[in-house]
Amino acid sequence: MTITELLVALLAIFAAAKLFGELARRIGQPAVLGEMAGGIVIGVSGLHLVDAHSPLIHVLSELGVLLLLFLIGLETDIHRLLAVGRASAAVAVAGVLLPFAAGYGVGALFALPTAVSVFLGASLTATSVAITARVLSDLGQLKSDEAQVILGAAVIDDILGLILLTLVGAMAAGRKITLIGVGKTFGIAFGFVVFAIVAGSLLAPRLIALMTRLRVTRALFFTSIMFAFALAYLADLAGSAVFIGSFAAGLVLARTDRARDIEREVYPIAQFFIPIFFVAVGANVDLTQLNPFNRASRQFLVIGLLLTLVAIIGKLLAGSAAFAGRPLRRLVIGAGMIPRGEVGLIFAQVGLTAGLLSAGLYSSVALMVMVTTFVAPPLLRAMLPCQTPDEVSTLSDVVTETMSDGTEAQVEERPR
Amino acid sequence: MTITELLVALLAIFAAAKLFGELARRIGQPAVLGEMAGGIVIGVSGLHLVDAHSPLIHVLSELGVLLLLFLIGLETDIHRLLAVGRASAAVAVAGVLLPFAAGYGVGALFALPTAVSVFLGASLTATSVAITARVLSDLGQLKSDEAQVILGAAVIDDILGLILLTLVGAMAAGRKITLIGVGKTFGIAFGFVVFAIVAGSLLAPRLIALMTRLRVTRALFFTSIMFAFALAYLADLAGSAVFIGSFAAGLVLARTDRARDIEREVYPIAQFFIPIFFVAVGANVDLTQLNPFNRASRQFLVIGLLLTLVAIIGKLLAGSAAFAGRPLRRLVIGAGMIPRGEVGLIFAQVGLTAGLLSAGLYSSVALMVMVTTFVAPPLLRAMLPCQTPDEVSTLSDVVTETMSDGTEAQVEERPR
Repeated sequence: MTITELLVALLAIFAAAKLFGELARRIGQPAVLGEMAGGIVIGVSGLHLVDAHSPLIHVLSELGVLLLLFLIGLETDIHRLLAVGRASAAVAVAGVLLPFAAGYGVGALFALPTAVSVFLGASLTATSVAITARVLSDLGQLKSDEAQVILGAAVIDDILGLILLTLVGAMAAGRKITLIGVGKTFGIAFGFVVFAIVAGSLLAPRLIALMTRLRVTRALFFTSIMFAFALAYLADLAGSAVFIGSFAAGLVLARTDRARDIEREVYPIAQFFIPIFFVAVGANVDLTQLNPFNRASRQFLVIGLLLTLVAIIGKLLAGSAAFAGRPLRRLVIGAGMIPRGEVGLIFAQVGLTAGLLSAGLYSSVALMVMVTTFVAPPLLRAMLPCQTPDEVSTLSDVVTETMSDGTEAQVEERPR
Repeated sequence: MTITELLVALLAIFAAAKLFGELARRIGQPAVLGEMAGGIVIGVSGLHLVDAHSPLIHVLSELGVLLLLFLIGLETDIHRLLAVGRASAAVAVAGVLLPFAAGYGVGALFALPTAVSVFLGASLTATSVAITARVLSDLGQLKSDEAQVILGAAVIDDILGLILLTLVGAMAAGRKITLIGVGKTFGIAFGFVVFAIVAGSLLAPRLIALMTRLRVTRALFFTSIMFAFALAYLADLAGSAVFIGSFAAGLVLARTDRARDIEREVYPIAQFFIPIFFVAVGANVDLTQLNPFNRASRQFLVIGLLLTLVAIIGKLLAGSAAFAGRPLRRLVIGAGMIPRGEVGLIFAQVGLTAGLLSAGLYSSVALMVMVTTFVAPPLLRAMLPCQTPDEVSTLSDVVTETMSDGTEAQVEERPR
């Protein structure tokens, strides 16, 4: 890809993100819904301005998720996260088991081979923490108890999902699955998070003290971004996802006395990369899969809609595994776990490559991913208390409020 | 390239940029010299941590140059630039003709074919505006008269260079060169800059007024960055370089009443991408070309050193074509035109691909590019008045001074 191709892609992405983000906000929806819808308009189902399969756009969008989770980590109090740890774990485990069983059931209903049904079940287990975290941020709900449970559960869910992916991947490749192998994968994945937080907490204050003694430009910014990149890289080495590493980096740096400064410094960079991810999610959506008049695809449309239904119900029920609070709060938690995002697609991709999923079944899973991803933002919006912008404390407000000139703050504070 | 490969590359690039940048500042040199030196350490001649030929790193580094020139444009007063327009044009034309003739002469001296000598001459004409602009910024000299002449001349030089590249490219491909063709290339290239500035000046205030009425996050930032990207893309369409377009965008936005706000908003993003370019310049340097003990490469080393010599003298003399000021000022202007950077390498690459330059002659040109690029920063540093950091007004200070918390400003203001 040349620089001019990148410029065209970025122009289309930013224009779509901002125009449709604005539109979404005007109709009272989270901006992220607009960004994804804008992606549909410029992507494979629309103007073809952005090829989300281009390696460059893909890797830049991954950098966006990484930075988003780093910021979310910086906003998260690890003690509050641990306080709801049991609820998070319960929600995560239920949120893996219920959709898995339901997905397997759908496969069995259509008399698909067991291995195929297992794959369908597995692809229903994921939660896209990026989408939910962004919605909570857009709605100013990142500090609520529900948000803590959702964040914790989504992280655990991601780790469980990766373990499951390793297992079904091994199954697809015809390798034997041993209890020791499962235990090892499990231990490394969770061990990394514990290690990253403990070792990081010891290291981070010293690193910051050392680097801010340098006279180079923006030493604090580069120290923290490199810290996040390093933990993300280590997470990948440990078999976990890069954004689990950057989330852990955020959690660690949130406990230093420079947390607010770091957040303000990282924010502008993150805002550049984050829309690339959400627009790419939309740009990947292929609406031709939804054509009910195409006889050949109708069966897969039915399977896809069934998968979507059980995917939504499964996660909503999983939310009840949380604390015995008000029913609405449990529903909110369940709704927050609904979006499958790119994680569900990774499962489907592995199945497709292994020859377990046909192109038709792949599109069924893709439909499920698409609907769950797009249904969660308005669902959460409807369930959460309607705040006026003055009450809203989104990530962006944290930063714009502290800006000296106040120009952005004015823009943010305009009445609806 | 995967996200983990990108993370490793960015970690290496930022670490090299910041550690060697700090080192350079401690010995009183511009930070950019350190960043390029750091690139050598982690690049093809050193630790091989960064492959600057990777398309991803290349395109990100080009984005860095584009944003740097956008910021330089935002800092530049177009009236002051036009006031020294005649001097700039004289320096640019002399800076193309003298090195071209000298390079041709070196080729003739070694009895090389005419077409080869023409290519050697052409590869000496370029000026890397990015490197000089960054050095002037590091030394706090961006507002001086000399800087205006250098910037204007470098932009004209770039356009002339691109025209020359079109011509020698056509020659290498055996196509006929017509006066009408030359005139057309010339007209489009210069016409674009005039068009961009006139049309942009009419459009920019309306665009800003429109976009800042939106409630989306950071509307001003995205408006200005998209304006720069759009002009960069148009510049490419017009056969010019992308960074000429972003420089023009900066010039235009500098005249709006939000210029300082835009600069502050763009600065953090630019700082993320700019070091990628300068470290990549160093990472590309292959020191094995310099081995004088290798008998086979010795002849090309001699040619390379001769080219380097005439490349430096040619541009220093070209500086005298400016106003009849103090001799030192003219020397400063000449020195500012010395670095060939990546532009010279593009010429050599075209010649190599066309089969006109042998691998040996390519390395001669690469040596010239390398030495001119690295010699300019300390040369300019030695010629320019030694300012204490308190007097220095670099791009970074413009921004850090306006930051509310003052933490970065403290770091910047530490006495040497």
